[in-house]
Amino acid sequence: MSKPARLPWKHEPSFREALKIPRGFRLADLDPASTPGFQGGKADGSRALAAGEAELDDLQERLHAQATAGAPEAVLLILQAMDTAGKGGIVRHVAGLVDPQGLQITAFKAPTDEERSHDFLWRIRRALPRPGRIGIFDRSHYEDVLVVRVNDLAPRAVWSKRYAAINAFEREVVGTRITPVKVMLHLSREEQQKRLLERLERPDKQWKYNPGDVDARTRWEAYMEAYQAVFDRTSTREAPWHVVPADRKWYARLAVQRLLIEHLREVAPRWPAPSFDPEVERQRVLES
Amino acid sequence: MSKPARLPWKHEPSFREALKIPRGFRLADLDPASTPGFQGGKADGSRALAAGEAELDDLQERLHAQATAGAPEAVLLILQAMDTAGKGGIVRHVAGLVDPQGLQITAFKAPTDEERSHDFLWRIRRALPRPGRIGIFDRSHYEDVLVVRVNDLAPRAVWSKRYAAINAFEREVVGTRITPVKVMLHLSREEQQKRLLERLERPDKQWKYNPGDVDARTRWEAYMEAYQAVFDRTSTREAPWHVVPADRKWYARLAVQRLLIEHLREVAPRWPAPSFDPEVERQRVLES
Repeated sequence: MSKPARLPWKHEPSFREALKIPRGFRLADLDPASTPGFQGGKADGSRALAAGEAELDDLQERLHAQATAGAPEAVLLILQAMDTAGKGGIVRHVAGLVDPQGLQITAFKAPTDEERSHDFLWRIRRALPRPGRIGIFDRSHYEDVLVVRVNDLAPRAVWSKRYAAINAFEREVVGTRITPVKVMLHLSREEQQKRLLERLERPDKQWKYNPGDVDARTRWEAYMEAYQAVFDRTSTREAPWHVVPADRKWYARLAVQRLLIEHLREVAPRWPAPSFDPEVERQRVLES
Repeated sequence: MSKPARLPWKHEPSFREALKIPRGFRLADLDPASTPGFQGGKADGSRALAAGEAELDDLQERLHAQATAGAPEAVLLILQAMDTAGKGGIVRHVAGLVDPQGLQITAFKAPTDEERSHDFLWRIRRALPRPGRIGIFDRSHYEDVLVVRVNDLAPRAVWSKRYAAINAFEREVVGTRITPVKVMLHLSREEQQKRLLERLERPDKQWKYNPGDVDARTRWEAYMEAYQAVFDRTSTREAPWHVVPADRKWYARLAVQRLLIEHLREVAPRWPAPSFDPEVERQRVLES
């Protein structure tokens, strides 16, 4: 069994409070190299990340356990970001440290013909986490108001109605006891350039490079405007957005880990009471 | 990037050779507390497991990478065992150490009504790993000749034809470049009793206990006969069975890790050649 983590801070900061976007939030005002809610540097950040592993692990196992007894709760981490911002690293180094049997990861690519023939939320609904799971969306329904808007993949009349549809959908999701944790990893254009160049230099990273990434770079401002519209229109009380500065990978990983822990604490999953009499079962096992 | 592991042995043993069942194999002759292919004790085993992580990680990432460039190869770990033998721990502590985005885990329970309305291999086919993935079956189509046979859930005329159907199916699977790694975790009846009692004692483990597990215990010999029939009839050249003694958890984890590594080495996944000119792309990134 995992023990509660001993944290490297005396008064634990609330990353949720530090990262949830306030009313009137302007993305342009947030420094992608900043570390809201955290005073230390990279080494402190790695220590804090390691210190949180056991608690996240324990919370995930309780979430899973209580679902086997019928509890409906699940958690859904929604990750949105420009390329190279570190979504994959977060799935690997944050979520990847809990039991993989408790994860339900979906990477949304350009929709298939079948997906395109349905409403944009069709494939999203199908990927919602089952009770007890931590779902992870690597990209999400927000692409339908981001890449679609920036590249005119649908008329304005179509995508402009989607913000309200998303809010209604997420309200419904919350109603089924799925806790959404919406995270945008905020990367600077300069840091992205460095990371793309690094991918091109390393034979073991080249496969992650996609020439299309440069096209998105040339529309950077349009993307930032589209993200701003997302924040203005879809950060609700039930499902607020968190913007995580992502130029420092160690900070982004720590921040997302803490966001998961803080949300899971609120879900407060508990070991389920047994549906059998343990003493009777003990005798049965001993006699078998 | 992960570096090749430095192993704690001078001459690396082949777990594949040590664990692949030989012609005429008798399950009853294999000691569940033995450690075939490994000389050391628990501490050595943990060191060896840690030493293998980086290589498994690297092989998994290459497998995933080459699939993005169209390579069809995948690996499928099929885990069968009596309850408490440690399947979940292996998924968590062996497979769970690679990138969860590269795993495709399916736990097969008693079939649903829909699944039951199809051929027994229908749900199995749907769960086969995509190219680049390490698929894991926590139980599998073998339940259709194990629990079904032991509990008379289908007439003998039905289940007795399934061995040949399984062999044909697995031949087909191998033909699509999925490498099956079939593993039975071999637990002793005494060790299972200890583990069931432990589950009953710990509030954080009770939820894993199922009164039905005792019923299976009372049919232990019938299960062992059913497993023996599986080995006699479905251990083929393309898809042989490996029987892993499982009374020592550390050994079972190490053995399955080494089996995965040895099979992946044979798949020999490689970083794909870029489909673009890296120098041209470097210029594009620099100018963007």
